[in-house]
Amino acid sequence: MRERIYLDWNATTPLRSEARAAMEASWDVAGNPSSVHAEGRQARRLVEDARAAVAASLGALPRNVVFASSGTEANVLALSPGLHAAGGRPVRRLLVSSIEHASVLAGGRFSPHATEAIAVTSSGVVDLDDLRGKLASGEPALVSIMAANNETGAIQPISEAARIVREAGCVLHVDAIQALGKIPLDIKELGADLVTVSAHKIGGPKGVGALALAEGLEGLAPLLGGGGQERGRRAGTENVAGIVGFGAAVKAALAGLEADGRGLEGLRDQLERGLRQTPGLIIFSAEVPRLPNTTLFTVPGLRAETAVIGFDLEGIAVSSGSACSSGKVQPSHVLQAMGAGPKLAEGAVRLSLGWSTTEADIESCLKAWRKLSATLIKDSDETLLERF
Amino acid sequence: MRERIYLDWNATTPLRSEARAAMEASWDVAGNPSSVHAEGRQARRLVEDARAAVAASLGALPRNVVFASSGTEANVLALSPGLHAAGGRPVRRLLVSSIEHASVLAGGRFSPHATEAIAVTSSGVVDLDDLRGKLASGEPALVSIMAANNETGAIQPISEAARIVREAGCVLHVDAIQALGKIPLDIKELGADLVTVSAHKIGGPKGVGALALAEGLEGLAPLLGGGGQERGRRAGTENVAGIVGFGAAVKAALAGLEADGRGLEGLRDQLERGLRQTPGLIIFSAEVPRLPNTTLFTVPGLRAETAVIGFDLEGIAVSSGSACSSGKVQPSHVLQAMGAGPKLAEGAVRLSLGWSTTEADIESCLKAWRKLSATLIKDSDETLLERF
Repeated sequence: MRERIYLDWNATTPLRSEARAAMEASWDVAGNPSSVHAEGRQARRLVEDARAAVAASLGALPRNVVFASSGTEANVLALSPGLHAAGGRPVRRLLVSSIEHASVLAGGRFSPHATEAIAVTSSGVVDLDDLRGKLASGEPALVSIMAANNETGAIQPISEAARIVREAGCVLHVDAIQALGKIPLDIKELGADLVTVSAHKIGGPKGVGALALAEGLEGLAPLLGGGGQERGRRAGTENVAGIVGFGAAVKAALAGLEADGRGLEGLRDQLERGLRQTPGLIIFSAEVPRLPNTTLFTVPGLRAETAVIGFDLEGIAVSSGSACSSGKVQPSHVLQAMGAGPKLAEGAVRLSLGWSTTEADIESCLKAWRKLSATLIKDSDETLLERF
Repeated sequence: MRERIYLDWNATTPLRSEARAAMEASWDVAGNPSSVHAEGRQARRLVEDARAAVAASLGALPRNVVFASSGTEANVLALSPGLHAAGGRPVRRLLVSSIEHASVLAGGRFSPHATEAIAVTSSGVVDLDDLRGKLASGEPALVSIMAANNETGAIQPISEAARIVREAGCVLHVDAIQALGKIPLDIKELGADLVTVSAHKIGGPKGVGALALAEGLEGLAPLLGGGGQERGRRAGTENVAGIVGFGAAVKAALAGLEADGRGLEGLRDQLERGLRQTPGLIIFSAEVPRLPNTTLFTVPGLRAETAVIGFDLEGIAVSSGSACSSGKVQPSHVLQAMGAGPKLAEGAVRLSLGWSTTEADIESCLKAWRKLSATLIKDSDETLLERF
């Protein structure tokens, strides 16, 4: 059997050996972290060690980190009406950038009529003037902007947004799920009040996320009630092994952050030089700072659904943007928000690289693309006109 | 170092070797179950195989099983205003037995003023006359009664309750977390509309639960929105390894159900014969059908907190009822509901056994108890008077 090439690291990354080893060891601890006996205290220690690691990765205090069962749950928990800084007024409306993950766009516990979208530029970067304008009313708002977009990789101007949000007396949530382990993150430097992260994007297990809170933030309403776990902020017996795996993965990811980033950027550039040989090929957000591992591209006339299957048959796992809509291939809401017409938005293919990606993988991918592009691209003139 | 004896299986059970092996194997599947490529489809298959196993354990259809991150989350998801049978009226009030788990007592998404408690007898069994009376108004209600209590082990009259609930045109939720793998369960035979189960009570990993729905039940409102996972009923990338471990554990648990149950009952009886040597010792719910592995006892004057620590120092892990209040030792709400005075409710110790418990463990436990009871029991006359 031919070896498969995995270029869908933004959907989920392979499990790191460090996470694997730590999780296996955690299985020998029989106790429930809420139990007072030795076995329980041992399980509690495992959870708290992992909490310290995740907190350190974000410059947060361990007591301000809440584990959850996914980035989605952490996002829904974060989008909590009533949040406020010490002495501040509780937020009652939600502003989300129009390129957020589906779990943020859904608005968490804000009603749809209390939720508004913030525009992005055609480069896929949040429009700070639009943010300023929407905050001008003075009504306390929660603003949610991701650190980097999962489809384009475009890094968002979080620190600038944070200044605007703070001057308006509002609260900022940053979904940093795609950014963690790829660019440096610090809750204080970002100026964020809440930061969401997820384990499976950095080589931890699937099904674990966390929400970090800035010191002094108040008013977070639990989503799961009925037990005292997570300082009363999230009831339910903890996913001990998953949390332990998250802790081990985040340590490994941060240790390799700088070196991995440089390596990935080199491979990504090699990939993009190759792709650009195709006439008319568009790489989205190429003109703005991006994550080092992400390329979203299309050619007018390409259908992403077909391209993903075509790559798969060539032994290469790629995606058409987010994997979060359960197999449904729909026009990317990110590209639509960037002003791309529906045909371009339907045609985007995402290639995302990771620490085990090699030059040979990139060459194989380009070879497959040359083969596929010769047969898959149709109607190019018509679709080009639509965009320009 | 002396070998520890673990008698807190109702808080969490050790991981089964079958679950361990299945989870390790699942780690080699890099894909996200929502991805369309081969790696994604492989992950999807793992999740769906586990779903079939969990569904089979409850006599439910796989498409009616929703995975969640804990029994708590599954309970909160289940307690959803608006649930209704096909053609029925959506429920607007919630009736919960007063011995439910904290996550059910918290009422899920029902407001506190729409939630009422159903009484239990002094034996810790739900009072069906009280249930009948509370349903007499005819207002559509969701009724939540657990299959077996986690503290006393008392098995609840679910089929009888289901007939009463159905005649009133209402909906029945059964928290079967503590019963799964210990007594036979079938959603249709129980007559339940929703059944909650959890992996870590049967030798699966911590941090995985599931909610099974009866065919035809409608109106379940998702708790986590924004992705199409779990047929739109629960967004977020799945805890693939955890779900796989749940599937493997449930198969192993059901395979051993009958034989394990007989063995456990014998050991439990041995334990209780020994305990009853202590004058004045009370075993709760001893007069009604109980799970084969659970003993909740006290002696007037005993303080559970001290007893748990005393047993722990003797190398034996036991608990004071539920572990779900994060280390806090509080008077048991279950015993309070059964009419035990606060001093008795503060003194109850739970011993719960599992498949690796041996006769020697029971002997060691009884030896430790004889030692502890000699020093721990005080004020017995006063407290006895309080109860009788």
